[in-house]
Amino acid sequence: MSKHEGATPANGSPGGEQRLSRASVQRFSLYLRHLERWNDEGLQVVSSSQLGDALGINDAQVRKDLAYLGNIGQPGIGYHLPDLVAALRRCLGIDRPWPAVLVGVGNLARALLRYRGFQRQGFTFVALIDADPKKIGQVVDGLTVQSPDKLPEVLAKTKAELAVIAVPGDAAQGVADLLVSAGVRGILNFAPTVLRVPPAVSLVSVDLAVQLEQLAFLVHLGQDEP
Amino acid sequence: MSKHEGATPANGSPGGEQRLSRASVQRFSLYLRHLERWNDEGLQVVSSSQLGDALGINDAQVRKDLAYLGNIGQPGIGYHLPDLVAALRRCLGIDRPWPAVLVGVGNLARALLRYRGFQRQGFTFVALIDADPKKIGQVVDGLTVQSPDKLPEVLAKTKAELAVIAVPGDAAQGVADLLVSAGVRGILNFAPTVLRVPPAVSLVSVDLAVQLEQLAFLVHLGQDEP
Repeated sequence: MSKHEGATPANGSPGGEQRLSRASVQRFSLYLRHLERWNDEGLQVVSSSQLGDALGINDAQVRKDLAYLGNIGQPGIGYHLPDLVAALRRCLGIDRPWPAVLVGVGNLARALLRYRGFQRQGFTFVALIDADPKKIGQVVDGLTVQSPDKLPEVLAKTKAELAVIAVPGDAAQGVADLLVSAGVRGILNFAPTVLRVPPAVSLVSVDLAVQLEQLAFLVHLGQDEP
Repeated sequence: MSKHEGATPANGSPGGEQRLSRASVQRFSLYLRHLERWNDEGLQVVSSSQLGDALGINDAQVRKDLAYLGNIGQPGIGYHLPDLVAALRRCLGIDRPWPAVLVGVGNLARALLRYRGFQRQGFTFVALIDADPKKIGQVVDGLTVQSPDKLPEVLAKTKAELAVIAVPGDAAQGVADLLVSAGVRGILNFAPTVLRVPPAVSLVSVDLAVQLEQLAFLVHLGQDEP
């Protein structure tokens, strides 16, 4: 599970009329993941039921979600796949690149740097930050690790609006405060702690232990069944 | 965002009367995270509004969720913290250890092995599996990397019911099939792909790019606001 905090999509929806729920936005990401694969495979047209079947979501929900994107489907035919992909990317705000800084250069950071899914969606790490003097100056995946006190100039130079926090839990709030004062607009937090940021800064937290707990719960339930 | 698939909590709830929604289970994990911290800090009693405030959830929802655990709160006083923590752990099925195997020994695996949040919740990696002949036999964090064809005997010996998949997307389904045939009961998947497993096996997928997309969407919305 992840926890989404900070700016809520109360208004400012791309269409301007309707509020998108968090759950819809998450489904949009999943729709996009499937549609891009089908697009790569050369599929031209897709129906709401195909998409629903692939994701285990009912048709009606899929149609309702996609209606948010405007009149892009044709009744009885379906959706033109490249148009649908473009509309979803525009709606999610990923029809442009998102440079991001990565704070905390440990194993998780190294995994994230090589995670192909990010690049594909336009997320590029443009700077690495670490407080450890032994790491500062090292080159990792073509980027030189810089000290946290360089953050304001790094953000100014790279135009990065997003930051990913991959430091231990006890260091995360300090890093978040630095990022906020340096002008970052969104933070993806992997540290197993609850961060406080001002409302103007968006925060998404990924607590990996919560994910494993969800799994344990599902297996535990299964065991209770006769 | 994560996607939860496989066994649904249709019945078999610990109390047996009521169905817990996925959203409730996710909130339970977040409640637990906060309560354990307060417990460590020596707090003895907590109210639903304290918990709600800390998580940005309204009181009524917190009380409704916690009522599922039975009569453990006292009106006007609150919840005895150690009892509440124990009840949540029991409900989530993490009042006992969960040995797990980790498949794919790259940077993500190394990060997961050192992720303190897992150990704390009773999740222990008891075996490392990788198909790369260069990695087989290496010792990482005290565990020897073993070949995938050893999976059945590894599961039998370690009694591991859970597996974490940290291999590239194109290898993930093959690994999932191996794990299923070796008798694993739950899979946490970090590979950026959609896996198919039989209904008897629980699956939780963590798509890191989806998380970053959610963040981009929130920041994007903020930009649309006047």
